[in-house]
Amino acid sequence: MLRAPEAEDLARLAAITGPAHLLMEGDERMGPYLREPRDQWQGQAAAVLRPDTTAQVSEILAHCNAAQIPVVAVSGGTGLVGGQILPDGPTPVILSLERMNRIRAVLPEDGALVAEAGCILADIKAEADRISRLFPLSLASEGSCRIGGNLATNAGGVQVLRYGNTRDLVLDVEAVLADGSVIGAGIGPRVLRKDNAGLDLRHLLIGSEGILGVITAASLKLFPKPGETVTAMLTVADPAIAVRLLHRLGRPLGDAISGFELINGQGVGFVRRFYPDWRDPLQGSPPWRVLLEAVGPEGGGMTARMEPILAEILEEGLATDGVLAQNEAQRQAFWWMRETIPECNRKVGAILSSDISVPTSRIPEYLEEADRRVGAIEPDLIINSFGHIGDGNLHYNLYPALGRSKSEYHNVKSELGRVLHDLAAEMGGSIAAEHGIGRLKLADYGRLGDQAGLAAMRAIKQALDPNGILNPGAAIPG
Amino acid sequence: MLRAPEAEDLARLAAITGPAHLLMEGDERMGPYLREPRDQWQGQAAAVLRPDTTAQVSEILAHCNAAQIPVVAVSGGTGLVGGQILPDGPTPVILSLERMNRIRAVLPEDGALVAEAGCILADIKAEADRISRLFPLSLASEGSCRIGGNLATNAGGVQVLRYGNTRDLVLDVEAVLADGSVIGAGIGPRVLRKDNAGLDLRHLLIGSEGILGVITAASLKLFPKPGETVTAMLTVADPAIAVRLLHRLGRPLGDAISGFELINGQGVGFVRRFYPDWRDPLQGSPPWRVLLEAVGPEGGGMTARMEPILAEILEEGLATDGVLAQNEAQRQAFWWMRETIPECNRKVGAILSSDISVPTSRIPEYLEEADRRVGAIEPDLIINSFGHIGDGNLHYNLYPALGRSKSEYHNVKSELGRVLHDLAAEMGGSIAAEHGIGRLKLADYGRLGDQAGLAAMRAIKQALDPNGILNPGAAIPG
Repeated sequence: MLRAPEAEDLARLAAITGPAHLLMEGDERMGPYLREPRDQWQGQAAAVLRPDTTAQVSEILAHCNAAQIPVVAVSGGTGLVGGQILPDGPTPVILSLERMNRIRAVLPEDGALVAEAGCILADIKAEADRISRLFPLSLASEGSCRIGGNLATNAGGVQVLRYGNTRDLVLDVEAVLADGSVIGAGIGPRVLRKDNAGLDLRHLLIGSEGILGVITAASLKLFPKPGETVTAMLTVADPAIAVRLLHRLGRPLGDAISGFELINGQGVGFVRRFYPDWRDPLQGSPPWRVLLEAVGPEGGGMTARMEPILAEILEEGLATDGVLAQNEAQRQAFWWMRETIPECNRKVGAILSSDISVPTSRIPEYLEEADRRVGAIEPDLIINSFGHIGDGNLHYNLYPALGRSKSEYHNVKSELGRVLHDLAAEMGGSIAAEHGIGRLKLADYGRLGDQAGLAAMRAIKQALDPNGILNPGAAIPG
Repeated sequence: MLRAPEAEDLARLAAITGPAHLLMEGDERMGPYLREPRDQWQGQAAAVLRPDTTAQVSEILAHCNAAQIPVVAVSGGTGLVGGQILPDGPTPVILSLERMNRIRAVLPEDGALVAEAGCILADIKAEADRISRLFPLSLASEGSCRIGGNLATNAGGVQVLRYGNTRDLVLDVEAVLADGSVIGAGIGPRVLRKDNAGLDLRHLLIGSEGILGVITAASLKLFPKPGETVTAMLTVADPAIAVRLLHRLGRPLGDAISGFELINGQGVGFVRRFYPDWRDPLQGSPPWRVLLEAVGPEGGGMTARMEPILAEILEEGLATDGVLAQNEAQRQAFWWMRETIPECNRKVGAILSSDISVPTSRIPEYLEEADRRVGAIEPDLIINSFGHIGDGNLHYNLYPALGRSKSEYHNVKSELGRVLHDLAAEMGGSIAAEHGIGRLKLADYGRLGDQAGLAAMRAIKQALDPNGILNPGAAIPG
């Protein structure tokens, strides 16, 4: 039976981290650890622990496991599904990895970098850049999210099409299991491109949302820095044309395509509302557009090749307008608009956000059918759907009609969410494409997930964390 | 307690597969299932079952689990570490996936193909080629190995540098667990680029060598077919120069490099011995050479760019001789030599083969120190080390001196193996880079593997296969 820590537990834990690094209930510095970006849950914690080393994390977990005290590991706290928050049940301790923020090694010849879990993503990217390499994980929150959380949630972002999800960027992890035992003890995460010994614990821990162990460090893959980057904004008639366009571009560009973002005119309108000075590079406020990016090595001629390719797709009617970024400032302006949509979405205030994926070929069908089903429930909603269409990942978000407020839709919210998730499941999709299950999607996952798979996950959780101390209740529906 | 099947078990199992697809002890067609390519073990089996559907696999496992009968799943049987052979203990049934060899779907717009476990790798590659796509997994055994085994062992091969190991080429798996429950029941493997719901069972099953479940089908990623392929054979002074060359080529070629094979003069000598008509494109039988391949999209100018790049590296002294393949026939001749080395190795007869990996930067140090330690045990051995150096993967193989036979080295064989594995572990490497643990490497893995990791693996095995029916004794040392 889990229980809240008592005074003697806290004294023991303070001895591990040093008293300066155990924040107690009532300390106002605890505030940020008890909130999450969407303010849907209020966290609770008997203390926030800020260990400095893997050995300290091990001692903390060993004590909490023996004492059956719940532990919630947190790094940047930017997750959107409540995985970093424990709102009820026995009061946990929060284990913050923010002080474990060292780059342990930079290894150019191995194309790798070893980072502790508390490193901020932008700092890791800058470190790679210093040796002319690329760490491609790219998220709107990269200035504040930390790699431990990126790993724990297998974060996605805008470069997945070419480089994969977070898990695809990782060579190895060092992690502490519930009983305090350390995977990679003494040697840390290894820097191997190939290792087929035993079961793949790395991938099991990545994306496990803190329920199987605490990742303390990882060896990350670095990539050659693209010598040339070509960015274009294109008007497309509809999502079906966008999918055809992506397929068509595969011929001349191959896997040089690094970004293919479908953007709805509503999202652009939100940006225009909050940034009235923003100038749209495209004519006539089109209802759908694509932000395309392709990369190639220096001297590879990518820029020269893109002009005729764009001419061809305009000729073929796959795009009806198109602008190539002429310089880095223009390129950044294109991306600024895309990356500003989530911020503007927050300002408008979504009734509902979603993070679904379906096979890429079925995106048009998903959008059409979702519009139909949502419209049948509530015809006046503003629908802003956008996403990483090359990965089949859509954020299909719903907003109040102009002049109405979020609260007026309170009674249909759960029905709307169910409809969007049911439709994804019907199409062989996922209800949690890049943000995880956390606490937000537990019920729908339990209802729609593969039942044999869920049973296997519960058995694995029980095997690795028999006392259930790690992030109780998250990720796997009970 | 595991037990051999009795007559009534076999009758029940025959009713599942149909009697024509249960081979009984004494049937000479069973022979191939009881041997493995290196003839190190003799298998045993009460019967070979050849189910046709996932539902049959499910029924077979449900029965064997309830009856506690061991089951060894086999697809192509080409593995080199004995994972497909159970030489002792209670007699198992062998579950062959060869009849489950359908391509269930080819999905160009989703860049994917759904194949059953019994599909031969070369057939999958041909199917991808038919729609002008690439399935990049490339192995010497691709004409006979089957994808189920590639998945179960997370096979490597010669294209890992650019495309990753088998696990990196898989979107999802359908699998039957020990109790007969089916992951992906009814829907099969999904075709999603992003799915962050729950724990990643796909990666847990891939590479698990049949001890956690039986993969029955998988959705595989297809890639754009390279429009241009440039292949070069280069003389390098030594492995340290080869590593520097690889790093140097990263600048102009980026991740266009798809192959970078280090080849020892001894291996070339073996090819010359068995194929005396073979003509070496390089001058003077160099002790070390590199087979380099780079790919790019059609019209991307890769061929034109390679000439000056090669001129530069010759100028810089990173290579002292080099030949570019002038046409597809020449390109295939270059690769024929590389792919023929394993066959010639077998003809010569290795005392010991190894499959280790270390960080790429440490390959020269590994080779030097291994030569020293091996020479201290037995100075007259012929050492043929070659490998996928871009992945840090070396096959460091030992052969009898001319005029001596394998048997004369019998008493030092295990010491030699231990030395090579110890050295890999000392350098943060793996003793099983691309072939798995199987039965061959259990003892050394138990001795050198991460102990916390091994304990976690045993707990997972116990959780998913509590009766221990699946490939008992393989992959994880007891």
